[in-house]
Amino acid sequence: MLNPSADGERFELHSPVAMPRAAGFLWNRRMMMQMNCRGYAVAQFMQPEPAKYAHAPNLEAKTFMQPEQPYYAHHPGRFFYIKDEESGELFSAPHEPVRATPESFTFSAGKGDIAWRVVGAGIEVEMKVSLPVNDVVELWTLTVRNLSGRARRLSIYPYFPIGYMSWMNQSAEYRADLGGVVASSVTPYQKVADYFKQKDFKDKTFFLHERAPDAWEAKQETFEGEGGLHHPSGVQQETLDGGDARYETPAAVLQYRYGFAPDESQQYRFIFGPAFDDAEIRALREKYLSEVGFATAEREYAEYVRQGRGCIQIDTPDAALDNFVNHWLPRQMFYHADVNRLSTDPQTRNYLQDNMGMSYIRPAVTRSAFLHALSQQEESGAMPDGILLVEGAELKYINQIPHTDHCVWLPVCLQAYLDETGDYALLDEPVTGVDGRSLSVFERISAAMRWLLDVRDERGLSLIAQGDWCDPMNMVGYKGKGVSGWLSVATSYALKLWAAVCDMRQQAELAQSFREGAQQLDDAVNRQLWDGEWFARGITDDGVVFGTREDAEGRIFLNPQSWAILAGTADAAQRGKMLHAIEQQLETPYGVMMFAPAYTAMRDDVGRVTQKYPGSAENGAVYNHAAIFYIYSLYDITESERAYRLLRQMIPGPDGDDYLQRGQLPVFIPNYYRGAYYQFPRTAGRSSQLFNTGTVSWVYRCLVEGLFGLRGQADGLHIAPQLPADWPSARVVRTFRGAEFVVEMVREAGVDQTRITVDGEPLQSAVIHDIEPGRRYQVAVHLPA
Amino acid sequence: MLNPSADGERFELHSPVAMPRAAGFLWNRRMMMQMNCRGYAVAQFMQPEPAKYAHAPNLEAKTFMQPEQPYYAHHPGRFFYIKDEESGELFSAPHEPVRATPESFTFSAGKGDIAWRVVGAGIEVEMKVSLPVNDVVELWTLTVRNLSGRARRLSIYPYFPIGYMSWMNQSAEYRADLGGVVASSVTPYQKVADYFKQKDFKDKTFFLHERAPDAWEAKQETFEGEGGLHHPSGVQQETLDGGDARYETPAAVLQYRYGFAPDESQQYRFIFGPAFDDAEIRALREKYLSEVGFATAEREYAEYVRQGRGCIQIDTPDAALDNFVNHWLPRQMFYHADVNRLSTDPQTRNYLQDNMGMSYIRPAVTRSAFLHALSQQEESGAMPDGILLVEGAELKYINQIPHTDHCVWLPVCLQAYLDETGDYALLDEPVTGVDGRSLSVFERISAAMRWLLDVRDERGLSLIAQGDWCDPMNMVGYKGKGVSGWLSVATSYALKLWAAVCDMRQQAELAQSFREGAQQLDDAVNRQLWDGEWFARGITDDGVVFGTREDAEGRIFLNPQSWAILAGTADAAQRGKMLHAIEQQLETPYGVMMFAPAYTAMRDDVGRVTQKYPGSAENGAVYNHAAIFYIYSLYDITESERAYRLLRQMIPGPDGDDYLQRGQLPVFIPNYYRGAYYQFPRTAGRSSQLFNTGTVSWVYRCLVEGLFGLRGQADGLHIAPQLPADWPSARVVRTFRGAEFVVEMVREAGVDQTRITVDGEPLQSAVIHDIEPGRRYQVAVHLPA
Repeated sequence: MLNPSADGERFELHSPVAMPRAAGFLWNRRMMMQMNCRGYAVAQFMQPEPAKYAHAPNLEAKTFMQPEQPYYAHHPGRFFYIKDEESGELFSAPHEPVRATPESFTFSAGKGDIAWRVVGAGIEVEMKVSLPVNDVVELWTLTVRNLSGRARRLSIYPYFPIGYMSWMNQSAEYRADLGGVVASSVTPYQKVADYFKQKDFKDKTFFLHERAPDAWEAKQETFEGEGGLHHPSGVQQETLDGGDARYETPAAVLQYRYGFAPDESQQYRFIFGPAFDDAEIRALREKYLSEVGFATAEREYAEYVRQGRGCIQIDTPDAALDNFVNHWLPRQMFYHADVNRLSTDPQTRNYLQDNMGMSYIRPAVTRSAFLHALSQQEESGAMPDGILLVEGAELKYINQIPHTDHCVWLPVCLQAYLDETGDYALLDEPVTGVDGRSLSVFERISAAMRWLLDVRDERGLSLIAQGDWCDPMNMVGYKGKGVSGWLSVATSYALKLWAAVCDMRQQAELAQSFREGAQQLDDAVNRQLWDGEWFARGITDDGVVFGTREDAEGRIFLNPQSWAILAGTADAAQRGKMLHAIEQQLETPYGVMMFAPAYTAMRDDVGRVTQKYPGSAENGAVYNHAAIFYIYSLYDITESERAYRLLRQMIPGPDGDDYLQRGQLPVFIPNYYRGAYYQFPRTAGRSSQLFNTGTVSWVYRCLVEGLFGLRGQADGLHIAPQLPADWPSARVVRTFRGAEFVVEMVREAGVDQTRITVDGEPLQSAVIHDIEPGRRYQVAVHLPA
Repeated sequence: MLNPSADGERFELHSPVAMPRAAGFLWNRRMMMQMNCRGYAVAQFMQPEPAKYAHAPNLEAKTFMQPEQPYYAHHPGRFFYIKDEESGELFSAPHEPVRATPESFTFSAGKGDIAWRVVGAGIEVEMKVSLPVNDVVELWTLTVRNLSGRARRLSIYPYFPIGYMSWMNQSAEYRADLGGVVASSVTPYQKVADYFKQKDFKDKTFFLHERAPDAWEAKQETFEGEGGLHHPSGVQQETLDGGDARYETPAAVLQYRYGFAPDESQQYRFIFGPAFDDAEIRALREKYLSEVGFATAEREYAEYVRQGRGCIQIDTPDAALDNFVNHWLPRQMFYHADVNRLSTDPQTRNYLQDNMGMSYIRPAVTRSAFLHALSQQEESGAMPDGILLVEGAELKYINQIPHTDHCVWLPVCLQAYLDETGDYALLDEPVTGVDGRSLSVFERISAAMRWLLDVRDERGLSLIAQGDWCDPMNMVGYKGKGVSGWLSVATSYALKLWAAVCDMRQQAELAQSFREGAQQLDDAVNRQLWDGEWFARGITDDGVVFGTREDAEGRIFLNPQSWAILAGTADAAQRGKMLHAIEQQLETPYGVMMFAPAYTAMRDDVGRVTQKYPGSAENGAVYNHAAIFYIYSLYDITESERAYRLLRQMIPGPDGDDYLQRGQLPVFIPNYYRGAYYQFPRTAGRSSQLFNTGTVSWVYRCLVEGLFGLRGQADGLHIAPQLPADWPSARVVRTFRGAEFVVEMVREAGVDQTRITVDGEPLQSAVIHDIEPGRRYQVAVHLPA
């Protein structure tokens, strides 16, 4: 049903119906597109906020990608109809809109392209789309081959719906001068100020061909006719009408009529995208729409994606894990941080965690992201809810809701960067803030830590305001009194991490004060929130402790446990109880749920999270971001087996039933799999299909620091693998501070504690010091069997 | 293809494909629904802002009804699939989604219901929907009859798609206890304040049956399957799966399996709508879901609609005109004013004009609307951009843009009320304003007139700010300097009307000052804006006169001419030139265009109107609201032939080609027909299908005052018909101040000037005085042949 390609560079699915939402995604510096296996697409570009150039058939709300995106007949997509002119037989590639049962089907997600091979009626159709690095344009190649062994007269119809562009103005026509269909619109608005904001928008959508077609149509309704999309009236005709759309829903449809000899194939190239005017369309045509233009763009894009390689290449007994970690995980991490999820105001916590991931790819990016984020620190030491990336950007949507956790991520994420690079000089970099003051990075983060200590209540717990890491937990503290159990232990963890940095800078007094603050938090949490078996999630404005055994819903939350482990708030006895409770109540075959049971009705002293559908998103899903914190904490206490089991569950497959239930290809980690495992087993495990998630940088960190135990520290590389017991060996090629470490890990009978050799020499401690850039180290790690 | 029913109470269309957007609409005090002939629906209810209970398949933007609404396969609708269990033959009523060619098809728009009769595969399907007066619920009756002359085993599937309700929470399941499918959701939001605004929303959608079904399905995707909506997988099965939707797109689908004897028929009742909770669903079921419940609701609704009868019943040589005027026009007027277009903040000009129409139906409503509007007058005398109707309402969308014309409508619309009722006592009613001051209606309108005189520039012309009557003409004066030619003459007209009222109240000085102001305006307009053949539309912020022969686009506008005629700004010579220019440049077979040529590109000293698609809406459509002003002005100067020709063009039909081009049934007047007649002839004449328009009350006024010349005045009923020359006679039953006038108008050879008799007695003047309520007058009007 599905498999990676032999070289591991692609992932292939061989059914259009088994996993109908299975999709791949491409992006570049200015756009992204998600293509599902059946031909539906979600694509957007930055101008500077996300905008669309192929629209729904109605006026769609401006939203993010939707979880578990529902598709429907007129959803935007990219389709090719193939009609046998003699028999009238019809199918469409890749699968929609005709949905004919193919003779053969392959959907192939690559790193720089998405491709299909579909065979129907003895005709092979290959489709491929790729993006260039810097322009907003889709590059499409269509190859049609006659496999039927006899001459065939075919009509081939690219059908690229453009959708309902605007209630103010929309039209389309065939433009012989530009070589394709060009649709025009005016982005709707009413206020005169918006005219000036929008007047340079790319309100045209073009679909250009390399080869001139025999006929065309630009009006959706004429093409579809009474036949419907599964059998369009336009296709039933001998030739398309050559119509235009005048305040009518546009579509780009071409018709190529061609007689194929046996085994003959024909290739067609098209480009599709938005533009401001004819001149821009013409320029894009010149630049791209040719064999050499496509080839150049693909070469450049491949080079761009190669910049996203991670710092480990692995070879383990789990080939599916290897494929994901070597090929797909760093790509997803690179997407997050290189283009910041194509947002102009990423949430501060996302921005910091996404850029933490870049520590393992291009640490210079992480460095400048920290400097940029800190330049927006408020005078109080607080971090804003989002980081503005471009001139004129503003805080939107969820970034208008006050959250109190953003400062926590500074030392937590910075630690990964410092470990990876040893670049403690960053701490002395001066950063001019929004208030005009110049403070060093060290001073700014110290101020952030003091702010965290300040925003506590009289019990010494951290106030939650209208949310912490959990965005929709917005009514625990909206009256100003509620506190977050998670944020309290997360603050403790952050303070302890930062105290260690203070120590290294001989700031003993500062270190001491942060440690005292952390201790106060630990004490307060243990006093107020320990429920006997686990830590509660918080205390509401009205003084109600929640996330406890008393609660029928939202009884046990993952985050307070994970971070209490990291912070050391919990002692060993407590940890034992917590792990047991989590195993009993939160673990599922698809990963560990964020809490359980999911809320089934509004709890108005907890908030919006309780109104989300039970088992979806933050309401008790296997919310991978929370799951990976737990896994990270398990590696921290060397709960290696448990950690790996849960980590492995984060990746779809490799067995067939698991794929079917999740419905997702293992080319990214989604933000959630459905939870509410005991409440709604039918849907449990289903992927959201959303590839934006703070999870991925932590997965990589868990692999580097935990599973393979190849963690940097100020003075070298610390080696302490936590391989699963049933792995006899693993091989990791680790690039670190300019050197390369070829690490062979082997379980050996008779070894009672880990022994390490470097280039054949025994290593006395677990740390390789004095690393020489450019050198290749052969490291052998002998592990107890 | 189409025809009124014999009694004129319904209008029928006999093809599902000839006019695919043809639709009827129903409304009640809390909701409206527009059903098109193929089964697609647009329905919304007030909570208190418009909301939906059947949704698009994606997250739709909050908007008004769209002009020329594009429909698509998964658009909300109400459908019944009929499957022959033996042959597998399938069709759907009314036409979508299967689109089988029917053996017979009738779409029948009534005043209180919309109905279909569809015959396919020897099976007759009758569908009917009606609304009760006060609840938000659709009442559906389905009758299936076996016409095939042989026994048939059928499966009957109501399919009511519910669509994508919410990204936060959506689900549906069959509820045996409630007797139907109930879908639940949470209206999406992010801000805590919105929770409190939304927590009482009716977030459930129910579809209840009277008869228990054999099977059901609540998940759209399961029902549709790979078969597609034209041939759903669920229908291909023997029985539906009985599934639920859990954060999956809901649908309400039932299955009834039944063996029909020859000629046997079965009837089914269903109710569909939104609710807050189970208790409300249960209560609606109790109240409505029975034969008696439906019958009671229909009787009450019929009574409600009867309250909307107009003050004339006509019998002319034009039967199609009679049908429209006697049945549909007052109904549309009644809709506008009884529920104020189901808005909580109608634009002030709409509110006043819509309620002007109520003068001819229920003048007490008009009276209180004036008092209500004036209670929101600003201290300056200005009227706000919208009138708030309910507690908590706020000015939204276009009402946030400053327009300068709202005061004009006070005397203009009030005149119709005063003429109809003679209720000059209204002028002495005290009205407490937003500032707490109590002023009489007369004082408030006088203040409004002074405000109009104040907001003029140094040339004496009226400033336009960000728009006048033409909402999107927003950049002529946004810098504070531009002026409106139309508003200048409209102000002149308003001042002259008001001066006459001042005269009647012996306020000679005030009358004089308003007349002087009007004269100044007339002089200024003639000096600054007369272009030699017509009046220009205005002068931009930069001093550019526009709407003149110098302009390649937007050369001649209708409104300045119409209102210059009404105001008397134009002398007879000027009028002759204007009428000629309008005939040459603006008249089309579908009515008179608002201006021409339509703009084809942004003119940024005119504004957003120039960005709308050429020929649509305010950008040079046959915008009926503007057209009817012109017609009204033509009647004012007894240009009777021209007036009637243009008035008649406002109603679709009666010839077949005209219907096809407009695509609309003559059961309402739309806000526009496409214009740009010379630029884009293919689309010219096409109806917007939008039934919200300030046009209708003016159409009625033109009929009453102009065509039939039965206008009230302070002391009686003035009689001066302007029948078209080719009408030999006409009969009008006119109710007026409690009396009934049966007016027979006849052209007679040898009559050289109009003679009138009342109950056989010659009338000396053209005015019937001393009207006795309750009396029936027989009036004969002898007209020159």
